[in-house]
Amino acid sequence: MRSRTFLLDASLDPRAFAAEVVRAGGDPKPLEEHGRVVAMTAVLDDESTARLERAPGVARVLSAPTPWPKIARRGPGARLVEITVGGAQKDRIVVGDDRPVIIAGPCAVESLEQLEACAKAIAGCGGRLLRGGAYKPRTSPYSFAGHGLTALRLLRQVADRHRMGVVTEVLDPRDVEAVALHADVLQIGARTMSDFALLRAVASVDKPVLLKRSPSATLDDWLHAAEHLANAGARQILLWERGVRGFDDAARNLVDIAAVPLLRMRTDLPVLVDPSHGVGVRRAVLPMAAAAIAAGADGVMVECHPDPGVSRSDGPQALLLSSLPRLFAQVEAIAQAVRPGLDAAAE
Amino acid sequence: MRSRTFLLDASLDPRAFAAEVVRAGGDPKPLEEHGRVVAMTAVLDDESTARLERAPGVARVLSAPTPWPKIARRGPGARLVEITVGGAQKDRIVVGDDRPVIIAGPCAVESLEQLEACAKAIAGCGGRLLRGGAYKPRTSPYSFAGHGLTALRLLRQVADRHRMGVVTEVLDPRDVEAVALHADVLQIGARTMSDFALLRAVASVDKPVLLKRSPSATLDDWLHAAEHLANAGARQILLWERGVRGFDDAARNLVDIAAVPLLRMRTDLPVLVDPSHGVGVRRAVLPMAAAAIAAGADGVMVECHPDPGVSRSDGPQALLLSSLPRLFAQVEAIAQAVRPGLDAAAE
Amino acid sequence: MRSRTFLLDASLDPRAFAAEVVRAGGDPKPLEEHGRVVAMTAVLDDESTARLERAPGVARVLSAPTPWPKIARRGPGARLVEITVGGAQKDRIVVGDDRPVIIAGPCAVESLEQLEACAKAIAGCGGRLLRGGAYKPRTSPYSFAGHGLTALRLLRQVADRHRMGVVTEVLDPRDVEAVALHADVLQIGARTMSDFALLRAVASVDKPVLLKRSPSATLDDWLHAAEHLANAGARQILLWERGVRGFDDAARNLVDIAAVPLLRMRTDLPVLVDPSHGVGVRRAVLPMAAAAIAAGADGVMVECHPDPGVSRSDGPQALLLSSLPRLFAQVEAIAQAVRPGLDAAAE
Amino acid sequence: MRSRTFLLDASLDPRAFAAEVVRAGGDPKPLEEHGRVVAMTAVLDDESTARLERAPGVARVLSAPTPWPKIARRGPGARLVEITVGGAQKDRIVVGDDRPVIIAGPCAVESLEQLEACAKAIAGCGGRLLRGGAYKPRTSPYSFAGHGLTALRLLRQVADRHRMGVVTEVLDPRDVEAVALHADVLQIGARTMSDFALLRAVASVDKPVLLKRSPSATLDDWLHAAEHLANAGARQILLWERGVRGFDDAARNLVDIAAVPLLRMRTDLPVLVDPSHGVGVRRAVLPMAAAAIAAGADGVMVECHPDPGVSRSDGPQALLLSSLPRLFAQVEAIAQAVRPGLDAAAE
Repeated sequence: MRSRTFLLDASLDPRAFAAEVVRAGGDPKPLEEHGRVVAMTAVLDDESTARLERAPGVARVLSAPTPWPKIARRGPGARLVEITVGGAQKDRIVVGDDRPVIIAGPCAVESLEQLEACAKAIAGCGGRLLRGGAYKPRTSPYSFAGHGLTALRLLRQVADRHRMGVVTEVLDPRDVEAVALHADVLQIGARTMSDFALLRAVASVDKPVLLKRSPSATLDDWLHAAEHLANAGARQILLWERGVRGFDDAARNLVDIAAVPLLRMRTDLPVLVDPSHGVGVRRAVLPMAAAAIAAGADGVMVECHPDPGVSRSDGPQALLLSSLPRLFAQVEAIAQAVRPGLDAAAE
Repeated sequence: MRSRTFLLDASLDPRAFAAEVVRAGGDPKPLEEHGRVVAMTAVLDDESTARLERAPGVARVLSAPTPWPKIARRGPGARLVEITVGGAQKDRIVVGDDRPVIIAGPCAVESLEQLEACAKAIAGCGGRLLRGGAYKPRTSPYSFAGHGLTALRLLRQVADRHRMGVVTEVLDPRDVEAVALHADVLQIGARTMSDFALLRAVASVDKPVLLKRSPSATLDDWLHAAEHLANAGARQILLWERGVRGFDDAARNLVDIAAVPLLRMRTDLPVLVDPSHGVGVRRAVLPMAAAAIAAGADGVMVECHPDPGVSRSDGPQALLLSSLPRLFAQVEAIAQAVRPGLDAAAE
Repeated sequence: MRSRTFLLDASLDPRAFAAEVVRAGGDPKPLEEHGRVVAMTAVLDDESTARLERAPGVARVLSAPTPWPKIARRGPGARLVEITVGGAQKDRIVVGDDRPVIIAGPCAVESLEQLEACAKAIAGCGGRLLRGGAYKPRTSPYSFAGHGLTALRLLRQVADRHRMGVVTEVLDPRDVEAVALHADVLQIGARTMSDFALLRAVASVDKPVLLKRSPSATLDDWLHAAEHLANAGARQILLWERGVRGFDDAARNLVDIAAVPLLRMRTDLPVLVDPSHGVGVRRAVLPMAAAAIAAGADGVMVECHPDPGVSRSDGPQALLLSSLPRLFAQVEAIAQAVRPGLDAAAE
Repeated sequence: MRSRTFLLDASLDPRAFAAEVVRAGGDPKPLEEHGRVVAMTAVLDDESTARLERAPGVARVLSAPTPWPKIARRGPGARLVEITVGGAQKDRIVVGDDRPVIIAGPCAVESLEQLEACAKAIAGCGGRLLRGGAYKPRTSPYSFAGHGLTALRLLRQVADRHRMGVVTEVLDPRDVEAVALHADVLQIGARTMSDFALLRAVASVDKPVLLKRSPSATLDDWLHAAEHLANAGARQILLWERGVRGFDDAARNLVDIAAVPLLRMRTDLPVLVDPSHGVGVRRAVLPMAAAAIAAGADGVMVECHPDPGVSRSDGPQALLLSSLPRLFAQVEAIAQAVRPGLDAAAE
């Protein structure tokens, strides 16, 4: 999906060509020379452009350069990411195929008991990936900022017991090595999406990276950050929509579900959605997880807690463990309902 | 869902009460007096508030007034809207029950042939509601602004032939009578959501009203506009999310899917979603329609055209008629997959 | 200011041409053909484009069409609007020359006493234009919506006594005639900026029109609405920035002061700024009025009240009458400090 | 400025108390108990709250806790920051008094010649602070990212020659020491405002810190980041508005000039404005610098270049060196025109 400019022969009715662009999914804008329309501009993918280029009366086609060549869409099937679970068993979890993944766990690792309760409930539903914050970025300097290394060790220990993979955030380039030692997927948070020093440090470790969208990032900004990772050597990148800055405080953020199909047109990287941070309201988590999967997301990430009332961060958005079975069942049911339709739509 | 302030006895540990608020889905904020926490504020529904009010140690509960008393949530089952199809047959179409509705049709009524082709395809899929613009608000004064009265008559004629209801926009208070004569549902557009003179005029006609969200409206602004309608006599109001102003021109607007569950917590009015105007990109329409239904929307509104290439407005977002069967099938499949889960989640 | 595409000869180094575009104030983006840069795109004004067109190595220049031909910038001096004060004396007030205008008055006309006190204070400072709401759009249907025709008559009567012009909003196309009978400037509010039926009705009356920016309008959307007015016959149009929808509730809106210089590059219509609705906080009104004038605005519009505490709308943003002399003095002082610099900058 | 809840005696007419709140600059919202208004909530400063607390009929006053106690407003005169110029001469530059400061220089340090030309022009106008990027965060990984250590040394050498201070950005906690060795003011960029690891590292060096606002930060988010700095030991913090994410691509960002007076009500930290990154358009830089000073900013930061056409970053927004005298003169003239008015307004 790039901007294209089609220079037209005088013989070609510009409206006829514009109709072809619309049929191809573009929104054509005319360009004039001496008061006469002589060209059309539209954002189009490579396939449509190649087809339109061959139409009679098209003299030349100019294209904006690919801004993120390493991660641009090459076609279906190219977007699989394999997560190697770091414990003794060396399992593999695939993201990007027909079965959506569910990453779940507490916002912050608070104790062995809390983490174990979460992991047991998630694993009981078939979940394979455990998230939990060890290093927490917090708006206030007086809020709980995570148990750090201790939390990393708990994550590894509990995840291994349940044959799960560990997903956790790294905040400081100086912590990358320690986090990579314990985690199977390194997460870049929304606040640090464009912290390029951190991105380079994370890319230097050969682990899958989950790149959260900054609340002010366009899709283009976000894909540029992913290209930073790819250019610095990251081979397995997952995108993670968690809502952009909205103007309505009824929700914590404004989840951009349309990012899922729009990214699919631009890149082969898998896309996950986080309805927990996205809305910040417990009762909206299940409906939004369902919406994400229905829109074609490769997975969702949710927060849960044995007792949200005593959670040290983000309790209002944490699911009860008793809601997890419904979440897993619903994601499965929707994935089955929607997948064939999506594939057809992509044709 | 209103702001509540709970004044606490000195005997009550504020943290213990805060935990209860979190368990009830609220995000408690402390209030201090002489450096000591003596109260908690949170946005909560009536049921949770009543329960928390009875907790030991809660001295008083203060509430922000209900800003839109006529449309505030009273509980499940209260949100049904019946659309009486205006032709000879006097059918009824119910919005707000377990089966989502699909409103479809061209952006603008262009000709009998165009409208008939759309209606035939929609009715063939089981669709009962035909949309089409007769009066079109257009950003540029030089764009096609609709065929007006002629289009209204075509809509009625074609809809009657297929036993469908007519949904169309009214822009000018002076046109309300004419539109109401031909249409079964009057639509208020995003540009005029807060045009209160128009809202009063529309409410004076006893027909269902579809109220689109303005691109800069919070849920609260939108519900205030609905209250204007209700206060002026409208008895059947449907809300219609079509995206808010976003900062990323990859999409025409930013569809706020979370509005669906968040509105459900606030009002009994049915909520529909418009993925066509919402994203403005044909290939995103099906995934976003699926997402809306998965999130619990009572229906979707989509634009279609026999040949989007020659559409006089919004061709890039118009579905091909050949995509309609897939849309209807997918909406049906997702509704079945998700409804039981949603009801349970609302408990 | 329109998008231009410069097709370059193979003899021309694209980087050298890009440097020329940057020097002209543009931000050049390359276009490729077969992997080689063969064109540059940038948003530029007519003068710069004509100059660059003559550069050696530029083969062809394509331009996006002018979207609002009737109001597009023609050059300095073209933007004067003359307001004829409607009372017996037939004075003229010029907007758009070197002396900024100050429009002041209460949010809503509440009583003869209130309006007279405001008008006396404003006239005492040299103010010539009195604003006051007769028909008020209000978020809640239960808020005071203005005294209508009675208020219009009071405005005319009080303004005549002080040789002032009347500025007031019209909400309903059916009220245009009555408002035009009493007012010297008709105001289109932010909520109805794109209510094209209203715009046409207002344009049919030969009076100056103040067009407020909608909170979700880009400059382009806003100028399109102004073109609607011009195309329907309005000859004197003033633009009125009042803030767009922001995400921070510390302010009521987010005042886009940069709109002033950016509009100057696009249109000859005068631009005023409303710091009262813009910020919604009394103590920010003076600093923001000063900022608007410093940025080159042709005037400001402020709300004032003899006692904001009893104001029936928007009291928190109303200036005290005792602050008006300071406002007028500061606007005058800044206009003198800044005008020569602005003219030079425009060269 | 914090949220306050005033509990009222039954003897007090809530409307009379609401009027007092409005007079004090607040926007009162009622709270009800059993359908009767018994309390009012408003955002108010300490002085107004103390005054209202003593009003007859006010039973209790509850306050939200101070979220950023270390940087909250204590009163006029408290906001001076002294920058010690790091070279041999040990000069001091004061920010926050009546004379605004102008920080100027190239976006990136490209060469000795480029930097020397800028510094000479700036110093010739009386400028004392030289900015220049050594480590540049860039959206694309393929863009020029700065000359690093070499650039730092050039900055120090050139600044010393002109008795200027050095302001430059630090991106990576591991670079803090090196940057602090050469710079007099360390700058935290918009992308890393909430990179708390970086904030802590910067705070550990005893140098003034310039904290840019993230494009998605509310004033509250931004002040929380400043509190992070203060809590980690930073003693001299300057805030730097550079525009938030807007929805209109006519400007690079949306400069929030109202942040200046609104911050003044909340904190004693000096506030600067960056019209260069803020608008991204050369011709808007002077008007917006003027607006910032008129609104009460303590200074502005602008980018300049001997030849913007060959600038390796952000050329379209760079001022010509020949425009600097006009910028300095205008800032001076506006500061004189506006300062007495601002002080009075603050009363």
